[in-house]
Amino acid sequence: MEKLEKLYEGKAKQLFATDDPEVLWVEYKNSATAGDGEKKEDFAGKGRLNNRITTLVFDLLAKRGIPSHLVKRVGDTAQLVRKMDMFPLEIVLRNTAAGHFCSRLGVEEGIDFDEPVLEYFMKNDELHDPFVNDDDLVVLHVCTRQDLAEIAPLAKRINEALIDIFAKIDVKLVDFKIEMGRTSDGTLLLGDEITPDSCRLWDQRDHSGKVEHLDKDLFRRDLGDIIPAYEEIERRLSELAASEGIAID
Amino acid sequence: MEKLEKLYEGKAKQLFATDDPEVLWVEYKNSATAGDGEKKEDFAGKGRLNNRITTLVFDLLAKRGIPSHLVKRVGDTAQLVRKMDMFPLEIVLRNTAAGHFCSRLGVEEGIDFDEPVLEYFMKNDELHDPFVNDDDLVVLHVCTRQDLAEIAPLAKRINEALIDIFAKIDVKLVDFKIEMGRTSDGTLLLGDEITPDSCRLWDQRDHSGKVEHLDKDLFRRDLGDIIPAYEEIERRLSELAASEGIAID
Repeated sequence: MEKLEKLYEGKAKQLFATDDPEVLWVEYKNSATAGDGEKKEDFAGKGRLNNRITTLVFDLLAKRGIPSHLVKRVGDTAQLVRKMDMFPLEIVLRNTAAGHFCSRLGVEEGIDFDEPVLEYFMKNDELHDPFVNDDDLVVLHVCTRQDLAEIAPLAKRINEALIDIFAKIDVKLVDFKIEMGRTSDGTLLLGDEITPDSCRLWDQRDHSGKVEHLDKDLFRRDLGDIIPAYEEIERRLSELAASEGIAID
Repeated sequence: MEKLEKLYEGKAKQLFATDDPEVLWVEYKNSATAGDGEKKEDFAGKGRLNNRITTLVFDLLAKRGIPSHLVKRVGDTAQLVRKMDMFPLEIVLRNTAAGHFCSRLGVEEGIDFDEPVLEYFMKNDELHDPFVNDDDLVVLHVCTRQDLAEIAPLAKRINEALIDIFAKIDVKLVDFKIEMGRTSDGTLLLGDEITPDSCRLWDQRDHSGKVEHLDKDLFRRDLGDIIPAYEEIERRLSELAASEGIAID
């Protein structure tokens, strides 16, 4: 597969065309951003780790009956994915109160919910990714009622599978952000990435009573170096994948 | 009915107990507030007008099969209402893009929607009445899934009836905010008020091409005196009520 012209550059990834019109080349970058892009820093090794982690998570999800856009990892920081028409949405699932939910609604961080919370945020830097509901999305023609009737149950299935995956490596899945799109034949698929950049992951191994973040909150909140945490997630997921018979190169 | 101790004072109304434990006494005030309470002014006659307008609207809704908490108007600025356990929610219905919807989502004011938009905002001054979705409300225990399954269709029925009422007096119902609660026997009812404070009402009689506000946007946006606009709405609604055989004292 040949890497051709750059199509898009985001905060953490670059997208390139390939000689297959149905396949894109993703390059994971070392940069981390937070606070609506106001905070930005490079971390050597982050691109490689996130490329490995998202590949492992997508493989573990596929084993649980949830396909994604991933074709295969093709290098330290590169992977091939199926080209999709993406919904311009951050699809957020929350199992435990944290972050924006707490500041917005005056709730203490760490309270477990009775059931998962699904929230949509429009991907729009200028508007600071506004929170929207189903009716908003429909009248804005971002998606149809039928799209939402597929997106919501898929998001909840992904949440259940991810809770299982992370529980198996002694990590609590507090919340996460995913994106979805449709392939040229109309199939709805999980896209983008699932990494410690896009999830809140609390370690359950060290029971000192305080939360041990294994995610980007280390950077957002100046709590410490993110790389050892990302390495720990990568190591545990590799062990789990191996135990499930998933081939890792 | 005897007016007893004050139970609550809001921005535009005061609530008093009565000698009937199932009935409250509402006093409409002359004050208008905007911008999260930062802008505040008194308008002589506003309390009397809003008391008359909300009584007319509730009577016109009752004729259309939608009961409310209203018992009866008992004075220039006073009415009796059924006591309810109120949901701490601003229930917003939008037929046309305006106000917060536009600033939040980068949409031009005046665009008509393909279908009505229902939005919930938590009544919480400290948190600036945050926008919430159904899942948020359920996990915060503000209401149950069953409550929402009753609130949403009632809100949409109220919208349809109000569109009809205002169309008959040549006014476009752009959007409005309502509140609901349950009586002691569990009945879900429309409460609070429906006035030019809580609705965006655009005059359709003067077709000069520009929007003629007959609502609180005159105050919010410093467009002119609100009293003549509120008087106009009261006059047209009185005519409509009379034409429908509703007794007005």
